[in-house]
Amino acid sequence: MEWTDSQTTQREAFDAFIKEHVLPHAGTWDREERMPSAAIQALAATGYLGALVPREMGGAGFDALTFGLLNETLGRGCSSLRSLLTVHTMVIHAIDRWGTRTTRERWLPAFARGASLGAFGLTEPQAGSDPGAIETTAEERGDTLILNGRKRWITFGEIADVLLIFARCQGAPCAVLVEADRPGVSRTPIRGMLGTRASMLAEIDLVNCEVPRENLLARHGFGLSHVAQSALDWGRYSVAWGSVGIAHAALEASARYTEERVQFGTKLRDHQLIRAMLTEMHVQTKAAALLCWNAGRLKDQRHPSAILETSIAKYFAARAAMRAATDAVQIHGASGCSADQPVERLLRDAKIMEIIEGSNQLHQISLADYASRTSPL
Amino acid sequence: MEWTDSQTTQREAFDAFIKEHVLPHAGTWDREERMPSAAIQALAATGYLGALVPREMGGAGFDALTFGLLNETLGRGCSSLRSLLTVHTMVIHAIDRWGTRTTRERWLPAFARGASLGAFGLTEPQAGSDPGAIETTAEERGDTLILNGRKRWITFGEIADVLLIFARCQGAPCAVLVEADRPGVSRTPIRGMLGTRASMLAEIDLVNCEVPRENLLARHGFGLSHVAQSALDWGRYSVAWGSVGIAHAALEASARYTEERVQFGTKLRDHQLIRAMLTEMHVQTKAAALLCWNAGRLKDQRHPSAILETSIAKYFAARAAMRAATDAVQIHGASGCSADQPVERLLRDAKIMEIIEGSNQLHQISLADYASRTSPL
Amino acid sequence: MEWTDSQTTQREAFDAFIKEHVLPHAGTWDREERMPSAAIQALAATGYLGALVPREMGGAGFDALTFGLLNETLGRGCSSLRSLLTVHTMVIHAIDRWGTRTTRERWLPAFARGASLGAFGLTEPQAGSDPGAIETTAEERGDTLILNGRKRWITFGEIADVLLIFARCQGAPCAVLVEADRPGVSRTPIRGMLGTRASMLAEIDLVNCEVPRENLLARHGFGLSHVAQSALDWGRYSVAWGSVGIAHAALEASARYTEERVQFGTKLRDHQLIRAMLTEMHVQTKAAALLCWNAGRLKDQRHPSAILETSIAKYFAARAAMRAATDAVQIHGASGCSADQPVERLLRDAKIMEIIEGSNQLHQISLADYASRTSPL
Amino acid sequence: MEWTDSQTTQREAFDAFIKEHVLPHAGTWDREERMPSAAIQALAATGYLGALVPREMGGAGFDALTFGLLNETLGRGCSSLRSLLTVHTMVIHAIDRWGTRTTRERWLPAFARGASLGAFGLTEPQAGSDPGAIETTAEERGDTLILNGRKRWITFGEIADVLLIFARCQGAPCAVLVEADRPGVSRTPIRGMLGTRASMLAEIDLVNCEVPRENLLARHGFGLSHVAQSALDWGRYSVAWGSVGIAHAALEASARYTEERVQFGTKLRDHQLIRAMLTEMHVQTKAAALLCWNAGRLKDQRHPSAILETSIAKYFAARAAMRAATDAVQIHGASGCSADQPVERLLRDAKIMEIIEGSNQLHQISLADYASRTSPL
Repeated sequence: MEWTDSQTTQREAFDAFIKEHVLPHAGTWDREERMPSAAIQALAATGYLGALVPREMGGAGFDALTFGLLNETLGRGCSSLRSLLTVHTMVIHAIDRWGTRTTRERWLPAFARGASLGAFGLTEPQAGSDPGAIETTAEERGDTLILNGRKRWITFGEIADVLLIFARCQGAPCAVLVEADRPGVSRTPIRGMLGTRASMLAEIDLVNCEVPRENLLARHGFGLSHVAQSALDWGRYSVAWGSVGIAHAALEASARYTEERVQFGTKLRDHQLIRAMLTEMHVQTKAAALLCWNAGRLKDQRHPSAILETSIAKYFAARAAMRAATDAVQIHGASGCSADQPVERLLRDAKIMEIIEGSNQLHQISLADYASRTSPL
Repeated sequence: MEWTDSQTTQREAFDAFIKEHVLPHAGTWDREERMPSAAIQALAATGYLGALVPREMGGAGFDALTFGLLNETLGRGCSSLRSLLTVHTMVIHAIDRWGTRTTRERWLPAFARGASLGAFGLTEPQAGSDPGAIETTAEERGDTLILNGRKRWITFGEIADVLLIFARCQGAPCAVLVEADRPGVSRTPIRGMLGTRASMLAEIDLVNCEVPRENLLARHGFGLSHVAQSALDWGRYSVAWGSVGIAHAALEASARYTEERVQFGTKLRDHQLIRAMLTEMHVQTKAAALLCWNAGRLKDQRHPSAILETSIAKYFAARAAMRAATDAVQIHGASGCSADQPVERLLRDAKIMEIIEGSNQLHQISLADYASRTSPL
Repeated sequence: MEWTDSQTTQREAFDAFIKEHVLPHAGTWDREERMPSAAIQALAATGYLGALVPREMGGAGFDALTFGLLNETLGRGCSSLRSLLTVHTMVIHAIDRWGTRTTRERWLPAFARGASLGAFGLTEPQAGSDPGAIETTAEERGDTLILNGRKRWITFGEIADVLLIFARCQGAPCAVLVEADRPGVSRTPIRGMLGTRASMLAEIDLVNCEVPRENLLARHGFGLSHVAQSALDWGRYSVAWGSVGIAHAALEASARYTEERVQFGTKLRDHQLIRAMLTEMHVQTKAAALLCWNAGRLKDQRHPSAILETSIAKYFAARAAMRAATDAVQIHGASGCSADQPVERLLRDAKIMEIIEGSNQLHQISLADYASRTSPL
Repeated sequence: MEWTDSQTTQREAFDAFIKEHVLPHAGTWDREERMPSAAIQALAATGYLGALVPREMGGAGFDALTFGLLNETLGRGCSSLRSLLTVHTMVIHAIDRWGTRTTRERWLPAFARGASLGAFGLTEPQAGSDPGAIETTAEERGDTLILNGRKRWITFGEIADVLLIFARCQGAPCAVLVEADRPGVSRTPIRGMLGTRASMLAEIDLVNCEVPRENLLARHGFGLSHVAQSALDWGRYSVAWGSVGIAHAALEASARYTEERVQFGTKLRDHQLIRAMLTEMHVQTKAAALLCWNAGRLKDQRHPSAILETSIAKYFAARAAMRAATDAVQIHGASGCSADQPVERLLRDAKIMEIIEGSNQLHQISLADYASRTSPL
């Protein structure tokens, strides 16, 4: 991987941020199943929540690689906080790419400051991997849209200020920005999840919720094919790098533990089976990082393959994270299953990565044509 | 596998037991990180806690295969409750095998009724996979032993009535029964574990704890090589079958879910990638069950290979459980990561199986000589 | 696994047979890509070729488990020779199960003695895993059938005396016994295969080949659903045990080599990574053997699940063989890639096992319903 | 990955070379177990055999990345021919890096033209992965060295003109260039290997073979630590890229076959299990290529991590090749096991990659410290 000086410098800043604001608290956030507002404010104060907002709209205007490093670092610290950046950025991207000038000026500056938090309202009880199955409806009545439906598993849905809701309007998919405090919006927190437990999932019920027509982000029929797909691309990119972060954290914890812990008279590090696991963790993490780097590079070049290369990176990195975290728990033994060590949290978070933003299976199926027709070099 | 009529009948009774007393509550026990006494009393009432206590001592006198089926069924329901049976039985076995007639008559009837619960006190902060590293000491003073040391990760250590403590006495390992209410015994619950969260782990501190000499179970030097090893053999056997139970439960949940859930217009069951996962789950679970059955059969024959075949079964079954539970979560998607479904608990419990009673790595190393020198048929 | 005294005794005889007639020559047969008639005569002399022919027809009348052990032992020695037993037995089974009394009396005694060798003519260039796609035709003209078509990958097709040909007759599948010396039958040897190189594969061309109607084994329409399916069941059973034999041979070779070879100052056996491979080989081989044993037991009981349990055993055992042989080559290093050691042949043969008689993928798909609806215990 | 225009252009030339000179013949070379001199002359004519010889010595002076692409392309065509480039280049590198000006001028121009072919004489019957165990001796007598010993598994040892022999001289390892036609050198071809069957392996016997002192490449004691290590680094780099080539070829063959072959009424490409294999092949091949690219980039920068990153790339790429080739055979079914298709050769060649230039296990052990102490990003 090749990083510019600016990227290297930023990465050090990201690193300092998690050392101060994230690593000491991530275990607590996970146990308490909530992200405290102090943490969100700290993230907002750095401007990182506006990473992809253009500078002229008050954002940081990061390139894709710098944004990738931000996600990797946050993922190393806390996948729940990283997932806030993910969904917030997905909404930012959708507005920036598909919104009119008016829409962009109305929302982006507040999103950039973190004054307003966005969440991505696609998934429904009967529509997970298959967004074509969404049942939420938007009915036009004059200049108003009336929304009805139920969204589930909405990351940070419990506290987001603005929800990007995907619905069917006259049969065709559309995308609408819905302020969470509108009448007709109710949200039910979801607790007891396996991983990313501080990501404040909610179920969102929309009952005759009225929204002005100017909140419509995409013309009918473009909701899924354009808005959702391009936002999901950035979602996958963020999750891919976040997964590298999990694998990286698993490696760091294991490197530390195997250096200290003695078993059968020798350092854990000196057992061949442990060495093999450390090597494998590093190698898989590096391969995942290179795939992410490659996707980011292509994104920065606006290369037409960038979307599919991002999917490849996400697919590989999620599995690398799961594998690394599973091995890290194994290396730590009983300690690794306890709250004394971060690794059991990493394992629980990693499993989520194999499911969200396109499960492993979905990628295995959807990438095959590209995989067959394109040179892997 | 071949089962006698009696084994088949018993298995139906076990099944009825978990349907009534375990399955409806296991999720709650996990979330609350405790096993309610009502559950333990229900288990005691069936006599299952005395499964391996001989009939003349008031126990059920199960053969190894029937005991295996009991563990499989409990493991399907709740690994924490199964782990109570595991450690309680390990202490029972140690007393029955190594205790004098007096010792056996003193303790076994109460253990059989569940009036007294046993826990296995081997592991220490610096002695996990390597029991030779234990540091707890037992000092002889007349007819009294004075114990000092710390035990960690003691399953049901928080509520057990009697702890089987392994210590060094004049340098050689010994095994002592310690009533938990003796002065000098203090216990600190361990919470926040990844899996088997209702197994009421504790750290046990022994500070100048005085115990009468007749509580000594094994002559000096036989503590580890005989008492611990034979108890661990039954512990592994119990965990092996319990792991089959986890894998079996993962399969059952996945079979149900894939029959109901529709994706991309077809039942989940009709997708090839899902079919491959279901097949693999069944096949691995069956192979694990056959290895356990084979070990149980040899145990009932008092065959010299029974101990090593039990290790093989534990090694295979723990991995099958982890793999099946991981795939089950994947098949269930977001639902599978939530408290709505049992599978995320199965995954967390399964990881523990790969670590306790001899980690995967320990088995890989320790079984190699037997593996090389014995026909696999 | 439980074996009767008779099975144990037979197994010793099988073992003696391969020590004398197979092990010293298997490498040569592989290199020369042919099975010498002396080897086939030796097998015929023992009566093993008639293993499944009933005693009243001059056969050995083995039970399924004894037949399994024969396949395991031959598989340990030479998969090509084992594959002769496989296809010959498939034809025997088809005749015995579906033939009239006249047909059985005409063919079985010669098959039992090995005076006549059978081959199984199902696969075609365009019909591999999907037998429904066969294109060979049988046209009825009076008491004669006229066959046209091409069969490919026919094991021992080069030298078999009788071919069991599957064809379409008036659109419905039928099964016909075709003597190889009839006009209109021509065969082209296939050489240069990856594995089971001495199994004398051939392509069979049928051009207006006339066969008397009494050679028809199954009424129209029963050819695939009955004759082929039940023959394939025994084919899978034979291959499953043969695969256990490959894995077993890989383990034996590795056990030997790791005991002798020294690296970095210690016996190969004493390296943890090697130990892990040996353990895994033994455990997987044992699990495969137990699944085969279980299928054989059910076959001997004429249990309705026997067919599906055989498929499970074949699926698991083929993969265990591939994995064990791959690891065995790895353990042996450069020597393992050379003709000095049997393991590279085992690897090449093992890959074939994952493809023939139903590929891994076919089993993953076809077993899912059974896997979901049946208890793995 | 990023390629310069020059690298892209060269790659097209490499591609044209294999289309004309390699792909039509590789199967034959494999079957006949020899590399015809016409093929070697064709390679020599392009100047590729002098890829790493500096321009002032008559070579092509390729950068590491261009050399990598050459190895990838040759590896796609024929691993045996690629292995000629590997060992020839290892000797070139050793001479260029460690030889005096006189030595370099004497040997390099002929090596660059391919007028003289080099082979690498390290491995011995008792010294494979552990070069410290070599037993060949070099005794100094005046200005002469007298060599005695046996080298085994020497790639292109049968026809090389110059052998770089590692020996012990007064107990310390040294490296000597030995012309193959000197008295005392005899070579025995090794046939019947699993893979890279046209790489003309030989056993080299040295019996009182006299060599002038100026043929000594490294001062005593530097033979292994410097000469062998730096040559092996380039050997691993070449094999790593060659392995990417194997995986790439497996993917290309599978892409083609699954597009054409129909099964159960649908193109093979449209089966989910096949799609998953194609995706996996592409993703692993790409990850391997990125790791190789990263190592090459660091080599061109003379970065101190280049050696270890090369090891990582080799470890990952060899396994990716094995996995891709194994899946490719599986996808092709019976055809894939036959000489009709290149994939069975790819599988046999791929297994060799997991063993040569440091086996998987050696890498797992040796890389652990670097893996633990270095950031994977």
